[in-house]
Amino acid sequence: MTQYQRLVLASRPRGEVQESDFRMETVAVPELRDGEVLVRNHYLSLDPYMRGRMSAAKSYAASQALDETMIGGTAGQVVASRHPRFVEGDFVAGMLGWAEMGVADGGQLRKVDTSQIPLSAYLGAVGMPGMTAWFGMNQILQAKAGETVCVSAASGAVGSAVGQLAKLRGCRAVGVAGGKEKCDYVVKELGFDACVDYKAGNLEADLAAAAPNGIDAIFENVGGAVFDAALARTNAFARVALCGLIAGYNGQELPIRNARLLLLNRITLRGFIVTEHMEFWPQGLAELGQLVAQGKLKYRETVAQGLASAPQAFKGLLQGHNFGKQLVKLI
Amino acid sequence: MTQYQRLVLASRPRGEVQESDFRMETVAVPELRDGEVLVRNHYLSLDPYMRGRMSAAKSYAASQALDETMIGGTAGQVVASRHPRFVEGDFVAGMLGWAEMGVADGGQLRKVDTSQIPLSAYLGAVGMPGMTAWFGMNQILQAKAGETVCVSAASGAVGSAVGQLAKLRGCRAVGVAGGKEKCDYVVKELGFDACVDYKAGNLEADLAAAAPNGIDAIFENVGGAVFDAALARTNAFARVALCGLIAGYNGQELPIRNARLLLLNRITLRGFIVTEHMEFWPQGLAELGQLVAQGKLKYRETVAQGLASAPQAFKGLLQGHNFGKQLVKLI
Repeated sequence: MTQYQRLVLASRPRGEVQESDFRMETVAVPELRDGEVLVRNHYLSLDPYMRGRMSAAKSYAASQALDETMIGGTAGQVVASRHPRFVEGDFVAGMLGWAEMGVADGGQLRKVDTSQIPLSAYLGAVGMPGMTAWFGMNQILQAKAGETVCVSAASGAVGSAVGQLAKLRGCRAVGVAGGKEKCDYVVKELGFDACVDYKAGNLEADLAAAAPNGIDAIFENVGGAVFDAALARTNAFARVALCGLIAGYNGQELPIRNARLLLLNRITLRGFIVTEHMEFWPQGLAELGQLVAQGKLKYRETVAQGLASAPQAFKGLLQGHNFGKQLVKLI
Repeated sequence: MTQYQRLVLASRPRGEVQESDFRMETVAVPELRDGEVLVRNHYLSLDPYMRGRMSAAKSYAASQALDETMIGGTAGQVVASRHPRFVEGDFVAGMLGWAEMGVADGGQLRKVDTSQIPLSAYLGAVGMPGMTAWFGMNQILQAKAGETVCVSAASGAVGSAVGQLAKLRGCRAVGVAGGKEKCDYVVKELGFDACVDYKAGNLEADLAAAAPNGIDAIFENVGGAVFDAALARTNAFARVALCGLIAGYNGQELPIRNARLLLLNRITLRGFIVTEHMEFWPQGLAELGQLVAQGKLKYRETVAQGLASAPQAFKGLLQGHNFGKQLVKLI
């Protein structure tokens, strides 16, 4: 192969992402320099944070440049290496973006073991989403046995891990998800104690029933009405790990309607970005990998086929059409 | 004296507090039992938290009972004692409420030294408001030299101490207060670096000018538009000590308009009630007392005369009519 295809950001979306915001290009495979590795991507990871990068507005990370390969996590196999730690055939996870292939400095790749854990899991339960759940649970929420943990987007890559980690700590795990199918999966397959379907129209009452002893810890992925409803059920000294606000990813203002609850219940809330805490990743990934290998941490994937499907799959992710971790399979 | 006067809560306010929500009563001075102390109150403390107690709604403390002496901090002098630690003439601070006299268990009184610190200061800078500032600054904000600290209600009993403690730590202290007179006081007498008059109509722009390097720590007493404006100027990893939301004390919903900022800037926010952290009071009060005695921690008082003036003074406090610590002088 001397050429490969990639998707670049063609324009910054106004409001909802459109497929026309991306453009497919064919580019030449570059020569490797010392220390570099050429990787054939098997899977692309699609994640909500990418929406923020597509805007020019101030964010916690630099904006995705126009006309450059769209950013993103990848899992694949080494094609050629000029780095001493990697040889052809190694499976690796990295950040090569929306492209069939890519070149990375060896220091930016993580060699992964696919003997007990599928390659794709390194983009989900044993990757950034899993680490997000692990960090929020262990470093922010620190939920104790008997406490109630509420997590929104509960069937998603992060939320599904949050609830299962909560159960492993002896907590009551309450999910919020959209639709009966997702809620059934969260309870019956993942083992949450309850899951509230926010689309059913009785959010407050259903959450009150699902968390009869109140909520001690919120892992928030969504924001808006779902977050407000969870805050309204908090107990004194509740903690909030603020991970995502997907309800506002298209740029609209996203209020917390009743800030008084934060004071009334002496809540500690912390916004976080897991990639700013890399010092925890070796420990977290080791634990998550063991749980997946043992079958104690389950996950589900929605897999789109082929690079060209990425824009539509990403759009669907932001609208909640995915079920579990959203991937794009290239090979 | 065999009788004294007190104010009881006659009815729960709907919306704004009315003077008719209180009722003056004359009651008999009770007999002391072992361990009890009879105190003549010289000063009553009026504080925003009292508004919350007047409601029947869920709060972090029990509601003020109807037809009972209105709760509140007091400073006064021992009239009679059946407790070994107190003798007639001792100056004490306690929680005897809106009354000329009161009986307390000796264990609930704090003997205070008025040789270098005026008695009234034990209800302000060396009392609960001062401790509130001290705890928020030292245990939550932990602002470092060179950082910018923003505090609302900056001329008030808590806010004035927050800014001065920030300056003592080498921070830039930015206040928000209502009106030119209060802002002038905050800057010229208390030594804040800047103070924004939220009534002047240019809150966002004025705050941007006052905090040219952004805001690293917010001590929030007010909520609403003032809090939103401060959040909009936060730097990454800013901290928020959520102490009060006086803008919403009459029961209206009080939104945080743009929750995205909490995530974008990875903010840690913590609501707190200083009386739940009594283990810090001995250290904090010692430090605050030393600062007041040395003239390094200044304060201002608004003093209403006579028990009957308490309801109107309290109403004025909630409307920002006070200037510094609001007291009622009884003797």
